[in-house]
Amino acid sequence: MSAPNLQRRGFLLVLSSPSGAGKTTITRRLIERDPTLSLSVSVTTRPRRSSEIDGRDYHFIGQAEFDRMVAEGELLEHASVFGYCYGTPRRQVEAALAAGHDIVTDIDWQGTQQLSVGVRDDIVTIFVLPPSADALEARLRTRAQDSDAVIAQRMAKSAEEMSHWPEYQYVIVNDDLETSVAKALAIVTAERLKRTRLPGLADFVNRLRGG
Amino acid sequence: MSAPNLQRRGFLLVLSSPSGAGKTTITRRLIERDPTLSLSVSVTTRPRRSSEIDGRDYHFIGQAEFDRMVAEGELLEHASVFGYCYGTPRRQVEAALAAGHDIVTDIDWQGTQQLSVGVRDDIVTIFVLPPSADALEARLRTRAQDSDAVIAQRMAKSAEEMSHWPEYQYVIVNDDLETSVAKALAIVTAERLKRTRLPGLADFVNRLRGG
Repeated sequence: MSAPNLQRRGFLLVLSSPSGAGKTTITRRLIERDPTLSLSVSVTTRPRRSSEIDGRDYHFIGQAEFDRMVAEGELLEHASVFGYCYGTPRRQVEAALAAGHDIVTDIDWQGTQQLSVGVRDDIVTIFVLPPSADALEARLRTRAQDSDAVIAQRMAKSAEEMSHWPEYQYVIVNDDLETSVAKALAIVTAERLKRTRLPGLADFVNRLRGG
Repeated sequence: MSAPNLQRRGFLLVLSSPSGAGKTTITRRLIERDPTLSLSVSVTTRPRRSSEIDGRDYHFIGQAEFDRMVAEGELLEHASVFGYCYGTPRRQVEAALAAGHDIVTDIDWQGTQQLSVGVRDDIVTIFVLPPSADALEARLRTRAQDSDAVIAQRMAKSAEEMSHWPEYQYVIVNDDLETSVAKALAIVTAERLKRTRLPGLADFVNRLRGG
């Protein structure tokens, strides 16, 4: 008996965490484990590095084009980091969701707040926390020569980022990487089974009932 | 690094389906695969069968006691089937949820509607559908000597039950039993990670931020 092919609406999965808590590693593993997930590709005004491919790592665009996209509402969120601009193109995300594809992005709480407005019911948000303050400090102490002042600054930044956990739907305490990836995959599976993401169900049940 | 023991609130997982779609088998397998899940034990006025154990299969009580429980609001839902009364005791469910235990029950849409009022945010509902009308009819045609009229009657009853799918949070099309059990387990895992079920998070993050 073949599985019925139900029409489904995709979702945008957002992972946020303080630096050092592991969101980027979890995101990468998640896509390895479920190849139907794809990373959102941002636009940026930053120059391309030699290792980067246009359209895969970023869409590299000029400042004028970026400003035009902001002005015409073509970005779901955007931010400026060290003088360069970054943004998530609306058209690409909306086309993927309508086609039933799920997209993943790791972004900070400010980007998540903007995305929540633009994507509304199609967003699934996960906040990743470190298992302890000691573990976080160990991960932030990346170089032996870091001064205590530098570490303290990074810890303060993380503390500020962590204060936004109540804005997220799910929370994963990243105690063990593989367990955290399995939890994120379970969230993906569950969200795909939500009635509200299955617009094809009404027709399917009507056929069952008439059958 | 040991996993932090976050205070968690349990939930009541409800599986409903038309007869023949597999909710009872999925429920049984679910509890085998995750022994921290336990079945809700109903009260009933039906006489105990020799194979049944009081307190495990049901709490067997008299009609006067049942009527008292209904009158005093001690049942989260109740129904009458073939002249006997059945109900879900409120105190037992509330104690389990407060202690962070998850409970499973397979019940029809009428019971689910009553539970949704009594348990509110602590309920997780899954509707199980058959993969096709043919598959459903095959499962309902349990005895070779069933007349077409009997089958038609069962199909009509199933069609009526299926009309309630929009009242559920998740929908599983039971095409393959093992896949359906895995989907239900993913829902359980995801629901345990929901921020709103983790009242211990605020303290945990405050300790992280102060650390």
